[in-house]
Amino acid sequence: MSNDEPAPELGIGMVGYAFMGAAHSQGWRTAGRAFDLPLRPRLAAVCGRDRGQVEAAAARLGWDAAETDWRVLVARDDVQLVDICTPGDSHAEIAVAALAAGKHVLCEKPLANTVAEAEAMTAAAQAAAARGQVAMVGFNYRRVPALSYARQLVAQGRLGALRHVRLTYLQDWLTDPAFPLVWRLRREHAGSGALGDLGAHLVDLAQFLTGEAIAGVSALTETFIKERPLPGSSSGLTASGGTGGLGAVTVDDAALFQGRMASGALASFEVSRLAAGRKNALSVELNGELGSLSFDLERLNELSYHDHAEPAPTAGFRRILVTEPEHPYLSGWWPPGHGLGYEHTFVHQARDLVHAIAAGEQPAPSFADGLRVQRVLAAVEESAAKNSAYIPVS
Amino acid sequence: MSNDEPAPELGIGMVGYAFMGAAHSQGWRTAGRAFDLPLRPRLAAVCGRDRGQVEAAAARLGWDAAETDWRVLVARDDVQLVDICTPGDSHAEIAVAALAAGKHVLCEKPLANTVAEAEAMTAAAQAAAARGQVAMVGFNYRRVPALSYARQLVAQGRLGALRHVRLTYLQDWLTDPAFPLVWRLRREHAGSGALGDLGAHLVDLAQFLTGEAIAGVSALTETFIKERPLPGSSSGLTASGGTGGLGAVTVDDAALFQGRMASGALASFEVSRLAAGRKNALSVELNGELGSLSFDLERLNELSYHDHAEPAPTAGFRRILVTEPEHPYLSGWWPPGHGLGYEHTFVHQARDLVHAIAAGEQPAPSFADGLRVQRVLAAVEESAAKNSAYIPVS
Amino acid sequence: MSNDEPAPELGIGMVGYAFMGAAHSQGWRTAGRAFDLPLRPRLAAVCGRDRGQVEAAAARLGWDAAETDWRVLVARDDVQLVDICTPGDSHAEIAVAALAAGKHVLCEKPLANTVAEAEAMTAAAQAAAARGQVAMVGFNYRRVPALSYARQLVAQGRLGALRHVRLTYLQDWLTDPAFPLVWRLRREHAGSGALGDLGAHLVDLAQFLTGEAIAGVSALTETFIKERPLPGSSSGLTASGGTGGLGAVTVDDAALFQGRMASGALASFEVSRLAAGRKNALSVELNGELGSLSFDLERLNELSYHDHAEPAPTAGFRRILVTEPEHPYLSGWWPPGHGLGYEHTFVHQARDLVHAIAAGEQPAPSFADGLRVQRVLAAVEESAAKNSAYIPVS
Amino acid sequence: MSNDEPAPELGIGMVGYAFMGAAHSQGWRTAGRAFDLPLRPRLAAVCGRDRGQVEAAAARLGWDAAETDWRVLVARDDVQLVDICTPGDSHAEIAVAALAAGKHVLCEKPLANTVAEAEAMTAAAQAAAARGQVAMVGFNYRRVPALSYARQLVAQGRLGALRHVRLTYLQDWLTDPAFPLVWRLRREHAGSGALGDLGAHLVDLAQFLTGEAIAGVSALTETFIKERPLPGSSSGLTASGGTGGLGAVTVDDAALFQGRMASGALASFEVSRLAAGRKNALSVELNGELGSLSFDLERLNELSYHDHAEPAPTAGFRRILVTEPEHPYLSGWWPPGHGLGYEHTFVHQARDLVHAIAAGEQPAPSFADGLRVQRVLAAVEESAAKNSAYIPVS
Repeated sequence: MSNDEPAPELGIGMVGYAFMGAAHSQGWRTAGRAFDLPLRPRLAAVCGRDRGQVEAAAARLGWDAAETDWRVLVARDDVQLVDICTPGDSHAEIAVAALAAGKHVLCEKPLANTVAEAEAMTAAAQAAAARGQVAMVGFNYRRVPALSYARQLVAQGRLGALRHVRLTYLQDWLTDPAFPLVWRLRREHAGSGALGDLGAHLVDLAQFLTGEAIAGVSALTETFIKERPLPGSSSGLTASGGTGGLGAVTVDDAALFQGRMASGALASFEVSRLAAGRKNALSVELNGELGSLSFDLERLNELSYHDHAEPAPTAGFRRILVTEPEHPYLSGWWPPGHGLGYEHTFVHQARDLVHAIAAGEQPAPSFADGLRVQRVLAAVEESAAKNSAYIPVS
Repeated sequence: MSNDEPAPELGIGMVGYAFMGAAHSQGWRTAGRAFDLPLRPRLAAVCGRDRGQVEAAAARLGWDAAETDWRVLVARDDVQLVDICTPGDSHAEIAVAALAAGKHVLCEKPLANTVAEAEAMTAAAQAAAARGQVAMVGFNYRRVPALSYARQLVAQGRLGALRHVRLTYLQDWLTDPAFPLVWRLRREHAGSGALGDLGAHLVDLAQFLTGEAIAGVSALTETFIKERPLPGSSSGLTASGGTGGLGAVTVDDAALFQGRMASGALASFEVSRLAAGRKNALSVELNGELGSLSFDLERLNELSYHDHAEPAPTAGFRRILVTEPEHPYLSGWWPPGHGLGYEHTFVHQARDLVHAIAAGEQPAPSFADGLRVQRVLAAVEESAAKNSAYIPVS
Repeated sequence: MSNDEPAPELGIGMVGYAFMGAAHSQGWRTAGRAFDLPLRPRLAAVCGRDRGQVEAAAARLGWDAAETDWRVLVARDDVQLVDICTPGDSHAEIAVAALAAGKHVLCEKPLANTVAEAEAMTAAAQAAAARGQVAMVGFNYRRVPALSYARQLVAQGRLGALRHVRLTYLQDWLTDPAFPLVWRLRREHAGSGALGDLGAHLVDLAQFLTGEAIAGVSALTETFIKERPLPGSSSGLTASGGTGGLGAVTVDDAALFQGRMASGALASFEVSRLAAGRKNALSVELNGELGSLSFDLERLNELSYHDHAEPAPTAGFRRILVTEPEHPYLSGWWPPGHGLGYEHTFVHQARDLVHAIAAGEQPAPSFADGLRVQRVLAAVEESAAKNSAYIPVS
Repeated sequence: MSNDEPAPELGIGMVGYAFMGAAHSQGWRTAGRAFDLPLRPRLAAVCGRDRGQVEAAAARLGWDAAETDWRVLVARDDVQLVDICTPGDSHAEIAVAALAAGKHVLCEKPLANTVAEAEAMTAAAQAAAARGQVAMVGFNYRRVPALSYARQLVAQGRLGALRHVRLTYLQDWLTDPAFPLVWRLRREHAGSGALGDLGAHLVDLAQFLTGEAIAGVSALTETFIKERPLPGSSSGLTASGGTGGLGAVTVDDAALFQGRMASGALASFEVSRLAAGRKNALSVELNGELGSLSFDLERLNELSYHDHAEPAPTAGFRRILVTEPEHPYLSGWWPPGHGLGYEHTFVHQARDLVHAIAAGEQPAPSFADGLRVQRVLAAVEESAAKNSAYIPVS
């Protein structure tokens, strides 16, 4: 801090402490170290159902207290912001309660498992906004510097009229039929499969990067492996096989959808968790009348940019290392070429949310943005159920 | 040749001498120099409508004679094989006539502009086959060594059950709205736009590489630039602006389609001639239960292969330089690492066709293969016209 | 922690708080959050000459106290480990004093500015080792997971007899002649230029990755820009122009050296800070009788591995994403494909050092390793001064 | 041809018909098909020692006649240009005789096995030039379009003052100790090993691309495998094992050298035929005050260019596909993105040589250029013999 008085604290209460909880914790711990913040995040309390596990997580991840009932966490006086890192089936209940309790809310993506839940959450957020609270949904990839910078280039008109928007998100951790039936493979918990897990990111990014809504979609979905072993125990994206029985996979393994952006650009999307060899391959390409951009999350410090106004003999996609001080978020980090990693997106998310709270402004992506994503996902499922018919997104 | 007697000649008569004609000529001139052939291709005669231009082309490209009427060319005694390099609207008439005249036929892709034409050609080819003639359609990319090798790996079962088939073919020569209205942008000549020009390659490759038919598709097409300047003159893919008037573009600029392969694998396709910065970017990726393959025509000497049986710590996509003597067609060329170019596909096509003729066997891809592609393209257009409804391919 | 008792604390005192100090702080703060540690690092005190700046740094970086005299810091009872992040000219004095005071020491690279200093430090470290203290030099790139894993593969014999060792480290921040004369360009502070700054990393990595010493070198060095503007103020690798005067650059801008490893493998090295467009391009390639490895720090989550025993048609460099749980350090982080960044090397360094202290073992790289690097750097300078004559390294 | 009269013929007589002979034949056959030429190359006669083999080669490669004595070939009236594709030990004798006989000469690289031979050849070429004959050395990589274009960019000043010149040429066909002792491994035939075979290309390219001479060098060479099986038979770069005996390898397996260009830029070079996994990996990078270029022969249709004047946030190495009509030699080939291969360099070489002959101008690279390369190679060997001492190149 550049002045003498330390910034006031912002007490964080987090629900859930698995993969996302660990990543969010890193964000809260680090944001004020890398950036000057108007409020100092305090990791007040973390919540989970198992007392022993949540206490161990609190010690490991740096939280001052542990709770086993999220309602108690929400009610704590030292918690001003509730950070929801649970599976999608509990997002709506916790978020609505936290907003009702006067807390700011950060909710992991996808916002909810259904459009109805997302609508209720958005209504709650709008009501809370009138009381000065903020609500944000955790589409953290908006805060990869290369993607944040891509948005700037598009907004500046560098690509001109957009023709093509192309996104894929491929992973391979479900390739093996022996991988067990974890919660992410059950509709009642996860809402959908690759569609909600990976496709939600793509839909949000497509709308964020272009500044346009997806106008409609046509879709196919597939569950290649219909049954999987019932799990023993699981954490994060790994799990050990279990008791010997099999259970039905009730979500999609993969989804294809294509559609039109509001401006008429064509858009294509593909998500899968059975793309052998692709680990976290979120790729984006935008083609416009004046230029193109391309990005691959497996090389997240790079953005490729083609300037179509450049004379043809010297034109080509340039590999920009998005590590210059002028690039988004880089002022807080290292000299050029010293790349960042996945978790930095959570630091940036925490930074921006703290600034929004201090400024009394609504951060992006809002719950309304999350609802828009949910509506596209619902249209995808409707189209898949209706022989791929094109479904406009309201 | 390894024996004393020179191989007998095979007289070639080619119709058309623009971009494709030049590429085929290179194939016919070179095949017998790089490979031992059972018949020696003789560039007997080339045909075009303008006497002066076709004579100049004959001299430049190495043809012994020039004709201005394709019926005369087809009737020449020294022509045993008719090679059709004209726009799609004349393929059917010439091919059927040549087959009726007892000639072998090589026909550029797409086989025809309509399913009906393609059916007639396929029937003619089957009748001619009974008389010992062969007919082949010029899907030359099957003979990129990397793609030919990819087919071998799939056929050997290296990928196991296929989950995803993903192909895109992106060019950018129509990005500029001032590019004139050449024949490729008129439905009456070209049949369709990017769909027939680029999509035909993708459909054939998807079916060739997987050994499976495309079972059905859902599609969107778009013409971004509705009118373009009427052309002055044009050749190949370049053209000069013309008289000042505008004319309607009557074909698609881009097409998206997605569907299912016969085995249930999901397939996605995208073609465009307005993807700024992408010059000849035909990309392929196949993901299977046991591994994956990926390819980019802009780096045509490379094939990426991921072996999913490899232990995770040492697994990864390996960049295979497809220039080893064991790789398809490489025995005729240079030491490892000394790459080939685009036109080598036409040398390989000529080589394989000559071998088929000498052996009295039908070469692949057959006219029936071309018809299958045509049916998929027709299903794409039907789906696009029917609100993206999923259309099974008969 | 998995048991009930919290681990005992390890008090850290850090000298210097600029670029390296910020990176080390991130390491100390985070190591115990990502990994189970037997001792809990406490950021006890940070030291710098300017009271106001060091206090601001302490607040920003999370240190409990600030000191302005490193002797006071070294004497603090709550400091068990002194972490030296100052320019090279003060390393020896601080390290020797800290060891004499019974503290563990972590010293940034290069170990010192001269061989004599490095010898004194090594002697002090050896004496301290007998008293149970540890000393480590901060060659953090050993702890990039991809390079740590590369070392494992070499040590397992995957490459067989080594033939070639090839390292370059290219940056471009001195390309502009208007960049001012910061301390890194003055021999009295920095010891040497690109050689000590970048070359020290390469020399250490070459010896670490191969498990062999560099036997001798032949070298060229160059200072392209002989004079630069005297600086106004500077921090990290950026600086603003200053007073208008010019001063002499007294270190190298670039250095080339080539030599032999103890086993007879050939080794080549190049470092520069005037390689336009290269930001932090540390590249490594090892070629052995049985395989090869290659690495680029600008893509630090990737390692390329060629297995020469693979049949030629399917052989090729495979791009391994070094993000699997089996890879070094990855157990503490995210699922496969979720990459790490530059600063994670400091987290890993802190982790390993804490384990060594708890186990009473000497960590690597030791001061003796740092001395070996210094001797190679001295041989480089001697060769450059002697018309590139080959200088054996003692 | 654009006019009515066919161009006059230029009779070619080629000595040698192995790898290089096949490549040159492709060049001679194709140059007039891809480009308008003022003279029509006629493949008049090819020469080799074995009657049966040379006649088979003539038939395969398209030569009108076969000779078994190069002196007879040189004396033929229908031969105006002698193309020398033999091992280096016979270059001088054939070239001097052909020039004395009034023929134009194209001689494969390296120009000769010794400086003395190269001097004699250069003197003969200069004498012949006065009689209107031309002589050219076959450094074909100058005519890779991407490298030819790189030279244009450097000559235009796009890179400004050069700082670094970095070239490596890595192959792996000698990695296996069982590979037999072919002629390329015997000093009496090949002159040197990787140095003359691969290093000659690098030295010529460094001087061509920069427009500067190499001022001096310091070097190391190594023969890792001292003995190899005596060969059975061999052709090109492959050979089969032989009789069971071993023979001494009398050339280098690898060479490292570094030096200074005339302008003061630093230059580094590495060549090896034991770099496992590298097949034909000739890489070039030039760093200048205003920009950088990089190139890899395994991706020969691409050139990477960094413009250092571009604002940092959008700067980066751009991947230029050197396939635009404005690029060197591309007017003769295909639309953008349709790449060329290795052998096109020989087509371009034939084209440029024919133009030079028709215009009565000396082509580049001249024998004097070849001599300059030879002097650098000699300095490399002298330095390696003198403990890496820096040897100025006269």
